[in-house]
Amino acid sequence: MNQETLLNTVHSPDDIKNMSLQQLNQLCGEIRDKLIETVSQNGGHLASNLGVVELTVAIHKVFHAPEDAVVWDVGHQCYVHKILTGRLDQLDSIRTEGGLSGFPKRRESEYDSFNTGHSSTSISSAFGIANAKAIQDQPGKVIAVIGDGALSGGLAYEGLNNAGRFKKNFIVILNDNKMSISQNVGSMARYLAGIRATPAYLKTKDRVENLLLHLPLIGKPIRNFMQHTKSFLKNLLYKSTLFEDMGFMYYGPFDGHDLGKLIDVLQVAQGFKRPVLIHVVTKKGKGYPFAEKDPKSFHGVSAFDIETGETLSGGKSFSSVFGTLLCCMAEADPHLCAITAAMPSGTGLSDFARIFRSRFFDVGIAEEHAVTFAGGLAAGGMLPVFAVYSSFLQRGYDQIIHDAALQNAKVTFAIDRAGIVGEDGETHQGLFDVPFLNTIPHITVFSPTYFEEMASCFQRALYQCEGVAAVRYPRGGELYKPKDFFASDSPFDVYGDAKAPIVLVTYGRLFSYACQAKEQLEREGISLCVLKLNQIKPVDPGALQVIRHQQWVFFFEEGMQYGGVGEHFGYLLSRKGFSGTYYVKAVDDQFVPQASMAQALHHLGLDDQGMVNLIRKECKV
Amino acid sequence: MNQETLLNTVHSPDDIKNMSLQQLNQLCGEIRDKLIETVSQNGGHLASNLGVVELTVAIHKVFHAPEDAVVWDVGHQCYVHKILTGRLDQLDSIRTEGGLSGFPKRRESEYDSFNTGHSSTSISSAFGIANAKAIQDQPGKVIAVIGDGALSGGLAYEGLNNAGRFKKNFIVILNDNKMSISQNVGSMARYLAGIRATPAYLKTKDRVENLLLHLPLIGKPIRNFMQHTKSFLKNLLYKSTLFEDMGFMYYGPFDGHDLGKLIDVLQVAQGFKRPVLIHVVTKKGKGYPFAEKDPKSFHGVSAFDIETGETLSGGKSFSSVFGTLLCCMAEADPHLCAITAAMPSGTGLSDFARIFRSRFFDVGIAEEHAVTFAGGLAAGGMLPVFAVYSSFLQRGYDQIIHDAALQNAKVTFAIDRAGIVGEDGETHQGLFDVPFLNTIPHITVFSPTYFEEMASCFQRALYQCEGVAAVRYPRGGELYKPKDFFASDSPFDVYGDAKAPIVLVTYGRLFSYACQAKEQLEREGISLCVLKLNQIKPVDPGALQVIRHQQWVFFFEEGMQYGGVGEHFGYLLSRKGFSGTYYVKAVDDQFVPQASMAQALHHLGLDDQGMVNLIRKECKV
Repeated sequence: MNQETLLNTVHSPDDIKNMSLQQLNQLCGEIRDKLIETVSQNGGHLASNLGVVELTVAIHKVFHAPEDAVVWDVGHQCYVHKILTGRLDQLDSIRTEGGLSGFPKRRESEYDSFNTGHSSTSISSAFGIANAKAIQDQPGKVIAVIGDGALSGGLAYEGLNNAGRFKKNFIVILNDNKMSISQNVGSMARYLAGIRATPAYLKTKDRVENLLLHLPLIGKPIRNFMQHTKSFLKNLLYKSTLFEDMGFMYYGPFDGHDLGKLIDVLQVAQGFKRPVLIHVVTKKGKGYPFAEKDPKSFHGVSAFDIETGETLSGGKSFSSVFGTLLCCMAEADPHLCAITAAMPSGTGLSDFARIFRSRFFDVGIAEEHAVTFAGGLAAGGMLPVFAVYSSFLQRGYDQIIHDAALQNAKVTFAIDRAGIVGEDGETHQGLFDVPFLNTIPHITVFSPTYFEEMASCFQRALYQCEGVAAVRYPRGGELYKPKDFFASDSPFDVYGDAKAPIVLVTYGRLFSYACQAKEQLEREGISLCVLKLNQIKPVDPGALQVIRHQQWVFFFEEGMQYGGVGEHFGYLLSRKGFSGTYYVKAVDDQFVPQASMAQALHHLGLDDQGMVNLIRKECKV
Repeated sequence: MNQETLLNTVHSPDDIKNMSLQQLNQLCGEIRDKLIETVSQNGGHLASNLGVVELTVAIHKVFHAPEDAVVWDVGHQCYVHKILTGRLDQLDSIRTEGGLSGFPKRRESEYDSFNTGHSSTSISSAFGIANAKAIQDQPGKVIAVIGDGALSGGLAYEGLNNAGRFKKNFIVILNDNKMSISQNVGSMARYLAGIRATPAYLKTKDRVENLLLHLPLIGKPIRNFMQHTKSFLKNLLYKSTLFEDMGFMYYGPFDGHDLGKLIDVLQVAQGFKRPVLIHVVTKKGKGYPFAEKDPKSFHGVSAFDIETGETLSGGKSFSSVFGTLLCCMAEADPHLCAITAAMPSGTGLSDFARIFRSRFFDVGIAEEHAVTFAGGLAAGGMLPVFAVYSSFLQRGYDQIIHDAALQNAKVTFAIDRAGIVGEDGETHQGLFDVPFLNTIPHITVFSPTYFEEMASCFQRALYQCEGVAAVRYPRGGELYKPKDFFASDSPFDVYGDAKAPIVLVTYGRLFSYACQAKEQLEREGISLCVLKLNQIKPVDPGALQVIRHQQWVFFFEEGMQYGGVGEHFGYLLSRKGFSGTYYVKAVDDQFVPQASMAQALHHLGLDDQGMVNLIRKECKV
């Protein structure tokens, strides 16, 4: 990048405070170039960041961070914010091990007021910060920036409901780009479209108000009527949006790429001693034609060619295998239906959505509702499958217990991104689904290693299990498969000599590493066996039976150790009279930071090398 | 009750179909008498049921259950529904072991369309049932009945957002009694109050509409203006409530005790091919003066005297001890604040709310928001304590991970009703908090047995633990305490001879039973020791050290076995070289049905007798 750019002069928000509007607009262009350059190399969230360039510049022009606190909902649109708050030099490291996070992190910068990653949290957390300031009589405004997609989440509504009666300034900026990751859905989306389609909205409101102020000029019958209804009409006219009904002052919609207008509006907004919602309309992907045209594909993107907009094709993944499989099953069973929480594409359901339109439900970013809705579908005789990323299903925990398991509803979960997800880091790792699902009575959980196992897992989940069942599978594709391993339909597979003194027990993706570890140790003359669990809850008694007399048992698990299968398996084994040495290697009471999947598993000691090292150390071989 | 009552002629909803309005009103009176009589004996939810007598009669008069499906949000207001659907004879058994549930249960009756218990689920599940009917082309309407309190939950909003664009009939009845359990809070509550204060609402709307239809009669300047704004105004007038913004037709508010009106409205509502919201205003406790006057106290009530309205006083409980304690701590620390999700009284926070008004937050029935809001308060330098029932905290699971633990926020959870709760049954048992909290990295969890331990637990949680901490305690008061046991401040206590071959390990309330079991066995000459864990996460290594050479270790736990402390403790013990017999007794992969606390623990084998029996059997003593 040219050394004489404006961008290179920006080391903190202070550096833009005195820039002219023209300079700021030039800065926006430079930021866009930098964003496209960086994301084309590192991958990341492009379209959403291109959409908020002017908005972010306006925020840092008007407000005084970090005294003024800005909370970015979901947070993947924080790149511009990071650029303006002294992190331009590190931007090239974004989403890599030890580098900048792709999301706001308090430990990374004092300008990041609250960590985000999951959707719809910003109003609640920002309102918490605002109250903390109020109680302690501290200076500073608090601003939550939330997308229209995130507004479909119930948590955002709970936040609005609580904040609407606040007696001090509190600003929510609604960044309305008509999208979640895909096209936004639901009543709120339609409602916002209605507002957007009324550009004369504010002007008309002014004129009506003027009219009401000059009532005496109107003829008698009208006047009588108007006087009766004056307060009623005024109420309607002043409380005319849903946000006003919820206690917020409403201003908008404004063009989110008109920097001058945005600066004016934000300056006005900070003057009110009550909650204000600023409705800003932005274009996802703004300024990069390929992203403007296809913002969905440029939401979260791998490295791509700037000139052509072409990314490396992902190839076959568990998501795509699932999508194809579910279409086949839906063809055969008219009761099967599919639910997504705003991620039809990410979960592999795009084809299903097109082919089985009446049996496909995109409920918005609303995982709680998705689960309860599935419970209702099941109670009505349907066979719902909720496809969802592991870390987002955490949102539906109570509903899985209360609206599915407790009524033994035939609800099936297709859990994508189970295990380490890599570059998105801590907030997106799928490390909790096993602990939280296995805790719940009567649930059956499957964890395939290979594509070819998906069909039998779903077959069993949908048609052989009573009540709630889940199939969990990792991000990306399958890993190493030994030539002499043949997948079965049974709850577990034994690979290698079942009489070997050392047994590795594992499930899911780690089986590939366990096989590689086995091969490496066998080359050194050490004989071992791998027990692969296909059904991880309940543990099949047969699996215990096979290995209960062995000398060493090592359980490897790509998930939390506490509440994982390993410690439970160990207890069951001890009850079967096992008297050897039992060792569990899993994620032990820690969050796992961003890094590639392979790097993360290596650091956790969960790849083949980690397994080999542990076995050598414990067995002294 | 008089044999010639109308009520005794009702064995199914069909039996009221031909009753006159006068007869139906008489029936309502008889139902009220029956409710008061039953709840005065069994305890239960009185005020909410008295409030929905006419509404429930109107629903069963107009609709044809079970073909028409009715979902009762929360469900504690289902007694009238149970009376009208053939369960009058069993009403005396309500909330007792083996008797009628105090909530709708599908396994109890085909008239119960969906199990409820937790708040805000009805729109989502009813919409699932409605879609199942639509896809399968099955007949029958679907009706969700939801209170204004439940409407503060985000799940209800997610349901509205998803249902608003439905193309078939779908009815939501908003039962607006201005209450959650306590006074309802938040913007939505104020908004509903605004609607209620406009009785002329519908009439005015008609008149304005008439006016607009006769525009040519008006003078020119006005006409020009009106023509410009006609569609805008019509839009405002037709989409004038938040519910209409969300895609629902809105009718109301109606007097929820005017049976004739309710019947008329419901008959009209079922004719529309789209979602309809009927706003009904009811009086909680209607017809029983004591309950009308103090609906909060008559929400969930113990047995009481009908003539005086007086209940047995509960005495000192963990909730009240917590409340007193927190007031003391808040007196000393101006950063301490308290949060409740619509249960200031149940969680013992009434005094706190009064004394520390600016540091008390009732956020509505919104556990997700409560947790994220607490994260925000902590990020802003405050010391928030969220007091909540164990089973309701399940709603905040993702937020505990994402908005508290992941940012190491100093959020403390005061978890009430941890363990068996008794008569409310399956949906309300606090059996999951240990598994779901202990799974989360860096959280510290305390589980006191006695009132006197509460102070040191909270002291440590608030001031000695870094990051998230929780103190969990049972419903009701403390149980048996041996005279020679003295509570300590340490993470564990050893009671009895630490060298005894048999060790009982437990925490919380079960310590009382363990002591009784110890006494009983010692009378038979069997020596044992009880290890009481005060801090259950992380387990203190010292606790393992003390017992690692013993012969038998029994772990008793009032919670789920999978993911509980027991199996984890066993693994840690085995890593310390323990070679004796280890046995965990907890709640093993089952939900626990309603019964008194003592009955439930007895059936689970978790009372003193169960402990004695298990030890005798396993140790053959």
